[in-house]
Amino acid sequence: MLEKVNLKRVMIKEEYKQEAALLEERLGLLQQRVKQNKLSVLILFDGWGAAGKGSLISKLILNFDPRGFRVQSFVAADQAEQRRPLLWRYWNHIPAQGEIAVFDRSWYQDITTAQLESSLSKSELKRRIQSIKTMERQLSDDGTLLLKFFLHIDQKEQKKRFEKLEDNKNTAWRVTAQDWKRNKHYDEYYRVFDQVLTETNTDYAPWHIVGGHDRYSAVIDIYRTVADEIEAAIEQRVEKLAHPVVLPPQIASPEGFDLVSVPKLSQISLSKQIEPERYKEELKDAQDTLKKLHNKLYRKKIPVVIAYEGWDAAGKGGNIKRVAAALDPRGYEVIPIAAPDKNELAHHYLWRFWNRVPKTGHVAIFDRTWYGRVMVERIEGFCTDEAWHRAYREINEFEKELSDWGAVIVKFWIHIDSEEQLRRFNERQNTPSKQWKITEEDWRNRDKWDQYENAVNDMLQYTSTDFAPWHIIESQDKKFARVKALRVLISAIEDRLDRE
Amino acid sequence: MLEKVNLKRVMIKEEYKQEAALLEERLGLLQQRVKQNKLSVLILFDGWGAAGKGSLISKLILNFDPRGFRVQSFVAADQAEQRRPLLWRYWNHIPAQGEIAVFDRSWYQDITTAQLESSLSKSELKRRIQSIKTMERQLSDDGTLLLKFFLHIDQKEQKKRFEKLEDNKNTAWRVTAQDWKRNKHYDEYYRVFDQVLTETNTDYAPWHIVGGHDRYSAVIDIYRTVADEIEAAIEQRVEKLAHPVVLPPQIASPEGFDLVSVPKLSQISLSKQIEPERYKEELKDAQDTLKKLHNKLYRKKIPVVIAYEGWDAAGKGGNIKRVAAALDPRGYEVIPIAAPDKNELAHHYLWRFWNRVPKTGHVAIFDRTWYGRVMVERIEGFCTDEAWHRAYREINEFEKELSDWGAVIVKFWIHIDSEEQLRRFNERQNTPSKQWKITEEDWRNRDKWDQYENAVNDMLQYTSTDFAPWHIIESQDKKFARVKALRVLISAIEDRLDRE
Repeated sequence: MLEKVNLKRVMIKEEYKQEAALLEERLGLLQQRVKQNKLSVLILFDGWGAAGKGSLISKLILNFDPRGFRVQSFVAADQAEQRRPLLWRYWNHIPAQGEIAVFDRSWYQDITTAQLESSLSKSELKRRIQSIKTMERQLSDDGTLLLKFFLHIDQKEQKKRFEKLEDNKNTAWRVTAQDWKRNKHYDEYYRVFDQVLTETNTDYAPWHIVGGHDRYSAVIDIYRTVADEIEAAIEQRVEKLAHPVVLPPQIASPEGFDLVSVPKLSQISLSKQIEPERYKEELKDAQDTLKKLHNKLYRKKIPVVIAYEGWDAAGKGGNIKRVAAALDPRGYEVIPIAAPDKNELAHHYLWRFWNRVPKTGHVAIFDRTWYGRVMVERIEGFCTDEAWHRAYREINEFEKELSDWGAVIVKFWIHIDSEEQLRRFNERQNTPSKQWKITEEDWRNRDKWDQYENAVNDMLQYTSTDFAPWHIIESQDKKFARVKALRVLISAIEDRLDRE
Repeated sequence: MLEKVNLKRVMIKEEYKQEAALLEERLGLLQQRVKQNKLSVLILFDGWGAAGKGSLISKLILNFDPRGFRVQSFVAADQAEQRRPLLWRYWNHIPAQGEIAVFDRSWYQDITTAQLESSLSKSELKRRIQSIKTMERQLSDDGTLLLKFFLHIDQKEQKKRFEKLEDNKNTAWRVTAQDWKRNKHYDEYYRVFDQVLTETNTDYAPWHIVGGHDRYSAVIDIYRTVADEIEAAIEQRVEKLAHPVVLPPQIASPEGFDLVSVPKLSQISLSKQIEPERYKEELKDAQDTLKKLHNKLYRKKIPVVIAYEGWDAAGKGGNIKRVAAALDPRGYEVIPIAAPDKNELAHHYLWRFWNRVPKTGHVAIFDRTWYGRVMVERIEGFCTDEAWHRAYREINEFEKELSDWGAVIVKFWIHIDSEEQLRRFNERQNTPSKQWKITEEDWRNRDKWDQYENAVNDMLQYTSTDFAPWHIIESQDKKFARVKALRVLISAIEDRLDRE
């Protein structure tokens, strides 16, 4: 793609001044419309060193009210970031609705310069490219406008600029040995950039390559692209809200995952029980085993994500407690998931889960999860049909990311039948010390048992993958459920450790 | 204090079992009351290596529902934490109302082991102790129950335990060279621990020293203390809500700060203006200067905190924009402060500002600030009188922390008179492209001009300190205000750089 850029063009000052003035006014007004229309805008800048990224970003944001945008600079990952999946730090900083986020460098550094400077295997590179495309598609589907700018200069121009920076003692520190190395091997980097730009130039997130030799034309290019694209995106958003297109539920990426077959809830026998004496022994035995495994996980820096879903009063809390009790408190966290707050609602629904991905070697136990999207949000109409249809695939992709990163993923559906739930609800209602556990909402949800059962069956069918299968835990007898959950967890961890 | 601990006591198993069973039941029930009564509980564990912290924490939390507590482990500060004030990472993890936070190590490592292992000057040590006491007092005043446990064992016992850990290949990695060094120099550490425990044993956050030789009595000690103290704190909280004690406004710590005199708003002459031509020149000149200074700040890793307060329609936004325009977008952030959300309301009011303290070398521009406590929250009754009376002192202490850390703090009151505000409100109302800027709330606030003026005068009088003085910026002429704010900021930064 780079060869098509005309690096020789020049814009005269008068023309620039006129055009810039018009575009600046447009951009200022557009920011308000971004806010009013709750559009999320992510503008990322990548390109050659000294191509002018910093100063072009400064110039662009002068047009915006500082309260409506953020600039995020991504340099080398710090310690905390290195202990998370590659995309974690980028997900953390995606824009909220109505917000403009400007990224100075981005996830592209992990597949461009990293190709030549880290020892990336071909398969790892392929995986990263796929992850990035998936993330961009997910953000775009959620209504985020992605604007990707690549600033292009040639080898000679870059050399000249480095020399100029070095000549001034205030700016000399900005040119590093790495920069010179990249200039020397310009051709190799050119090949890599060109290949990545081509591969990631998608419908939902096309590249805008800007020639960086002439500053005037670069500014106008960027201004115009930003203004035009924001306008188009707002129109599209308005149109989409008025006339939503609903596709059938989506499950897999084109690349495909293997789905694992899971029985329907109605096929589950709930008669399983455990004798109190055997429970005591088996619980202790399983907890001791898990304790030792936690130590190994910590040392091998393997993260674990445990997802708990299940019927109200099925015994999730007590089950989680028995798992947690076996873990070193310094290495796990229980994350209760309630209805999203205002700020969470203004982001992609996976954002708050991405934010809570554990560190390597740590265990995150989610008490309710991202599956809310295809259960309560689907049933209560908290998201559009189009959105929850899309979610199966997005969730599979999310879990695939975690799995590829090295995480053990264990998902539990804690299961009871409707009569047992009624019995437990009544017991809670009639026991003063347990009344806080039961709310009006629980009764309302209970009335929708059939709708939920239907949604759960869909969820089990569409999101049970070979890397993150669902486990149905029969919890009519809570003690049986606790031992079973521990055993499933232990076996998943042992499988993972065997692969080390 | 340590010499008073009886390390020889022993509890027999039968007695332990009986007592533990009763206390465990009490603790389980108390967690619910903590939630219902919205008590924040912070339990911190410190003590000798191998004294049993980890296993005692595990034991304690078994009594709680994992959804209502968090364990936070504080080891050496990571890169991101090192670029913030010492207390930053602890503030980030304080418990919300109704939540129990368990800290495995805490801020005490920064004044105990650090005394012997880092080259801490005496004055820095004194400062740190003072900061910690201040933080504990602030949390306590806000209704947080602070439970501080120190686990004590003697040198011989510690040696025995290290050896035992080393004998097992699964636990050998837990004993480090540092641990052995500490054991060898036990006496020196003893002296330091004892001194710090004595100095920080306050009414609002007393120490509970637990003999760690006998596990049974240690468990019972901790169980009983936690149960008794939570019960007492809940009673106290209920009592305090029913019968609040209101003290007059507090300003300074006993140690005292120097307050700087600031005129009352009514004494400010608002006739100051600037010629359009001179404005253009001076603005450019000031922005160029600031740009260069930002570079220096970045290289010297000096953080800057800019606080903007002012009347509605006084021109805060435009003023911020002119400052921001001179800064490198990779090194500053504009932080708009709206009404606190649910989660923020459940924390100490300074929590959300502590979270947003900039990194060293970065600039944080707050568009509205922590002063909301003594303005809108005071006037609208969003907090108790007692709370905003306390706030002047707390805010001075907060800013002192930032200043001692090395930050430049610049606070602006953007000022216009009531007639000018009316004129601007009407102009906004009558200009379609500006109507979004004016809301019903603005009109309601305007009706309370006199109350606000009174509150602002108090604020200026009580929180203008030598390390963080207020600057009143006359903004009847917005252009004049912009240049003045830039000049004030430049001068504050230059003063700070001169002290390097």
